[in-house]
Amino acid sequence: MTRLKESFDFDKQVLIVGTGLIGASIALALRRAGVDVLLDDVDSEQIDVAVARGAGRRLEAADTPEVVVVAVPPQEAADTLVRVSTAYPKATLTDVTSVKAPILQAAIASGADPARLVGGHPMAGREVSGAAGAREDLLDDRLWIITPQRDTASLHKEVTEHLIVACGAVPVVMSADDHDRAVALVSHAPQVLSSALAGLLLDAPASHVQIAGQGLRDMTRIAGSSPTLWTEILSTNAEPVTAVLTHLVERLQLVVNALSTAPSETANQGLEASLADGVLGRERIPGRHGSKPQGEAIATVMIADRPGELARLFTAAGVAGINLEDVRIEHVLGRPSGLVELIVAPSDLTVLVSTLQIAGFDVRL
Amino acid sequence: MTRLKESFDFDKQVLIVGTGLIGASIALALRRAGVDVLLDDVDSEQIDVAVARGAGRRLEAADTPEVVVVAVPPQEAADTLVRVSTAYPKATLTDVTSVKAPILQAAIASGADPARLVGGHPMAGREVSGAAGAREDLLDDRLWIITPQRDTASLHKEVTEHLIVACGAVPVVMSADDHDRAVALVSHAPQVLSSALAGLLLDAPASHVQIAGQGLRDMTRIAGSSPTLWTEILSTNAEPVTAVLTHLVERLQLVVNALSTAPSETANQGLEASLADGVLGRERIPGRHGSKPQGEAIATVMIADRPGELARLFTAAGVAGINLEDVRIEHVLGRPSGLVELIVAPSDLTVLVSTLQIAGFDVRL
Repeated sequence: MTRLKESFDFDKQVLIVGTGLIGASIALALRRAGVDVLLDDVDSEQIDVAVARGAGRRLEAADTPEVVVVAVPPQEAADTLVRVSTAYPKATLTDVTSVKAPILQAAIASGADPARLVGGHPMAGREVSGAAGAREDLLDDRLWIITPQRDTASLHKEVTEHLIVACGAVPVVMSADDHDRAVALVSHAPQVLSSALAGLLLDAPASHVQIAGQGLRDMTRIAGSSPTLWTEILSTNAEPVTAVLTHLVERLQLVVNALSTAPSETANQGLEASLADGVLGRERIPGRHGSKPQGEAIATVMIADRPGELARLFTAAGVAGINLEDVRIEHVLGRPSGLVELIVAPSDLTVLVSTLQIAGFDVRL
Repeated sequence: MTRLKESFDFDKQVLIVGTGLIGASIALALRRAGVDVLLDDVDSEQIDVAVARGAGRRLEAADTPEVVVVAVPPQEAADTLVRVSTAYPKATLTDVTSVKAPILQAAIASGADPARLVGGHPMAGREVSGAAGAREDLLDDRLWIITPQRDTASLHKEVTEHLIVACGAVPVVMSADDHDRAVALVSHAPQVLSSALAGLLLDAPASHVQIAGQGLRDMTRIAGSSPTLWTEILSTNAEPVTAVLTHLVERLQLVVNALSTAPSETANQGLEASLADGVLGRERIPGRHGSKPQGEAIATVMIADRPGELARLFTAAGVAGINLEDVRIEHVLGRPSGLVELIVAPSDLTVLVSTLQIAGFDVRL
């Protein structure tokens, strides 16, 4: 993982092709850094919106941008890369598609210059689309993976890294295949899993679904994402996603087999080992700021469910100088009240609890 | 789902057998309601701890409790129910085991009086154990499922409901089979799924796991639970859990098949339909207070990651009289900062956003 220093002058002229949410947000971020930005889109009105928002000026025939960022939908990315490779024969070429190897292979097979091509994937985005939803800070502090090919010239890789830093993001270098397998594991397969679990609820009796708690809510949150968008992503990254799902089904099948065996010590040992794998696997997920989780301490507070109670709680924590790692709110059926879990570094727990208790909060450990 | 009125005099003498976290918490809640509570445990020291915490007095040979709550580990629950059924031939008998049908069947088969037996499952608990961790408010506003059998006399069902209300919880009546299928769906299978997904991370390259985002974190949160405890729960509820997991594997297999087919419109339609099921299934999960989700609106705020910022944010929201349905905090790699998602009723969104913007917050929609 590469981390470049945060401030960086970027003095190349950049063309953004595709002024949707991501393209226009990149343009705004580059403008914020003082970069000269040109804009192009098959939808001329989208360019007007982006120009009106200060994202740059409309591309003209005489322009010769030094960097081109292709931010069009996945199915058009390869063709667009080929077109700009021909139109701007010296420019650094990059894209923002969330699957990398198939796009880059298709572009190179159709004539895009491999020496100037640097695949990219900014790990940002929201469920809004279009230049109107763009934000100059959408990419701030986000990972932005780049996937230089074997033939990519180091100059063009570096230009892309500098562009990413100018946008406020953090460049990370991976191979295209690695990238596609990584997103299959940490993003695409979990999406399928969340949708499959939520899909089971469709045919369940209402009385069963009614007793759902926070665990099920957490596990089905991303199931609310757009089926159309995800069908496109999943089908483009079919092979790596299939590989992860196949391993997952194998793990589930082991559990099913252990449960189907007449209860035995061996079956239970297998089950417990499988669950223990999950405990260890989970610990590998980085916490905030890319650091390994240092262990966390949780203080649970029962608060009245009315305006102002959360403010009072966080004011008390803030006065004590405690930094909250995370916050979870669980509502319980019945009276209007809620459980708030404050997750802090273990070393902060004692001060937090005594502060909250002095402030009259009902704190549980 | 039954909801009784909140305040209720409960004037029967109650014996709690098993003074661990749940048993001692029930005892404390009953004491809070002025109930006469007796305590028993195979571990005499646990009784001392519970008595010292004000959970009641030690059971004596001459005592004849009118209600017995069995709060021992699952594998001892059936035998204990049989024993107390004989020892106290008129008492209402209930337990707190998280799987119902096998326990109740075993108890009745071994001689527990079916007319007096009312299975129970308070939907509460924390990852601490023993009387020392007990709280008188652990059950407040929690669902407490009861599973009367065909032979259960209505008197004993009502006594159990009144005991639950006296504890501050909300009684919900289901059949034992229904309960076991419901918890398999909303709790046990999701646990297996979360562990299986997290287990995949164990063998993944560190660089792949490093780019994990909030989606994966949410989906693997419960994978951190105790493998020993969950092995016992899952093996006791093997058949319903197996049924849910089998359906889930079928759904995953459909996705794998669609992805393995050469990209075709039919395959993509199948994939999209499967994801759309998830969107609809997720909408069936009740929101707070058991109500159906009314739709939610989200305001995202970028805040500096330092003490006091959350307090300032929630103070601003509280001043505007906005009630937050939920809060999610997402940390991003790189600079110390975080995205906070405030989830509110759609009708509150406009006021919230303008209030926060006036207060100088960086709000995104």
